[in-house]
Amino acid sequence: MRKQISSTQNPYIKELFQIKEKSRIRKKTKTFLIEGLREISLALKGGYEVHTLLVDFSIIDESTLNSLLKSTDLSIEVIEITHQIHQKLATRTTTEGILAVAKTKDLLLKTLKFKTKNPLILVAEAPEKPGNIGALLRTADAAGIDAVLIANPKTDMYNQNIIRSSVGCLFTTAIATGSTSEIIAFLKAHKINIFGAALTASVAYQTKDYTEPSAIVVGTEATGLTDEWLQNTTSNIIIPMRGAIDSMNVSVSAAIILFEAVRQRQL
Amino acid sequence: MRKQISSTQNPYIKELFQIKEKSRIRKKTKTFLIEGLREISLALKGGYEVHTLLVDFSIIDESTLNSLLKSTDLSIEVIEITHQIHQKLATRTTTEGILAVAKTKDLLLKTLKFKTKNPLILVAEAPEKPGNIGALLRTADAAGIDAVLIANPKTDMYNQNIIRSSVGCLFTTAIATGSTSEIIAFLKAHKINIFGAALTASVAYQTKDYTEPSAIVVGTEATGLTDEWLQNTTSNIIIPMRGAIDSMNVSVSAAIILFEAVRQRQL
Repeated sequence: MRKQISSTQNPYIKELFQIKEKSRIRKKTKTFLIEGLREISLALKGGYEVHTLLVDFSIIDESTLNSLLKSTDLSIEVIEITHQIHQKLATRTTTEGILAVAKTKDLLLKTLKFKTKNPLILVAEAPEKPGNIGALLRTADAAGIDAVLIANPKTDMYNQNIIRSSVGCLFTTAIATGSTSEIIAFLKAHKINIFGAALTASVAYQTKDYTEPSAIVVGTEATGLTDEWLQNTTSNIIIPMRGAIDSMNVSVSAAIILFEAVRQRQL
Repeated sequence: MRKQISSTQNPYIKELFQIKEKSRIRKKTKTFLIEGLREISLALKGGYEVHTLLVDFSIIDESTLNSLLKSTDLSIEVIEITHQIHQKLATRTTTEGILAVAKTKDLLLKTLKFKTKNPLILVAEAPEKPGNIGALLRTADAAGIDAVLIANPKTDMYNQNIIRSSVGCLFTTAIATGSTSEIIAFLKAHKINIFGAALTASVAYQTKDYTEPSAIVVGTEATGLTDEWLQNTTSNIIIPMRGAIDSMNVSVSAAIILFEAVRQRQL
C-alpha cells in the first residue's frame, strides 16, 4: 500500500515547504525539492540521490511514474499527495504533478572533476538573480563545457528559481562554489588561463586563443568584475558594443564568448 | 504656468492608461507610452515624436528634466503629475518619475533603411513573449546590425514589456514587421542570403559565410521555424547542442550566430 498524505498541515509537508522556501533550511537538512518530470529525470541522470517522490495523480499518470522509477536503480519512496498539497509545494501547479525530495551535493572545488583534459570553464562572480544563474547553466550545458564555478554566491544553488530557469541543467553540469580568492587559486593551481569579461578593456574577445585550458569569467551586468578578478586574469577581454547601449545580459555575453571558444577548439 | 494633473480620474490620464494596457488602442491612436529617462532619451535619439512628458517631481528633479528637454529640438509639453498618477501609469514606480507620450512608427518593410550597403539582419518569427523580443532587440543593438524584422508578430511592438526588456533598444534599431511571406519576398528582392536557425539541420552555423548580405532567422524556442521559412532559406543552420538539453533561449541563439557573423565581417 502506497503512503498517502492529504493534509497541508502534515508535519512532513510543512518541513518540505520550509525546504522549498529557505536556503538556511536546505543547507541544514542537505535536502532540496525538485519540481517537474524533466528536471527529476536530469537529476537522476546527474547522480543526485532522490529518496522520495511526491505525486499528484490528478495530473500525472501511473505509467509515467513507472517509467521514471524504471530509469533508476535507486530505491525511491513514492507518496501520493493531494492536488492541494501539490499547489502548496509547486510553482507550475497544473502541468507537472510530480516533486522529488533529494540530497544536495556539496559542490566543492576540491571534489570537482573535469570531463576533458583540456577544460573549458565558466566562472560567474556573485550573480544577482537566480534566473541569471539558471540561464548561465543552460548556456554551459549547450556549449558542453567542463564546469561552472560560482564565486561568492548570493544564494545556495538549490533555489527553486535556479532549478527552474536552468531547465534542469543544474544537474547535468559540474558545478562548484567558492570565494573569488579560492577560485582564482584553484584555476592557477590547475594552470588554467583566466579570461575576465570586463566592461572596459582594450582586447576584443575574438582575438584571444581559447584552445588551451581556459576559464571565462563574467561579473554582474551592472558593475562587472571586481578588481580582485581583473588583476588576476591572463587577459581581460571585452565584447565590443556596436550600438546605443553599453551592457548585455550576462548569459548572452557568456554564450558569445563560450561559443567562440568552442568554435576555435573545433577548427 | 505648467499644466498639472492631480486626479487619476482625469480623462486624459484614463486614456493614457488604456494606451498603456491595450494594443488595439495604441494602434488606433498611433500613440504609446515610454517609461524612464534612459528610454525616453533613446526614443528622442531614434527620431520618435515625443509630444508630452509627464513628470512626478517627488522622484525626478527639475534639472534632470531640463537636460532632457535641451537634448531635443522638439516642442514638448510638460505636465506635472502626482505620485499616485505615476503609480497608475508606470511599472517602475519609485525610480524614474518620468513618462513620455509619443507617436508610434509604422515599421513598414517598404520604408526600412539599412545603415550599410552590406546588411546584416535578424528576423524573428512569431516570438511568443514580449521579453524575448526585448532581449533580441538588445542583442541586435549590441551587434550593431542593420535591422530586426518581426514576422507574424503576436503583439504590437509598443507593448510596455518589449520597451522595458529592450532597455530602449526598440528605439535605436531599424525595425519592420510583416508576414512571413512578405519578409521572404523582401529579403529575396534585396538579394539577401537567408540563414534559418533550425532545430534539426546538418550544417553547423560556424561553417557558413555571413560576409555577404545576410539575414539570420530564428523561430520560437518550442517549435522552431515554420516550413515556409525552412523551405525558402539559402541554408538552414544549427547551433550544435553538446549537453543534456536540446534547446536554447532564442536571444542566446541569435546572439551566438549574429556575433559569429560580426566576427567574420571584421576579419
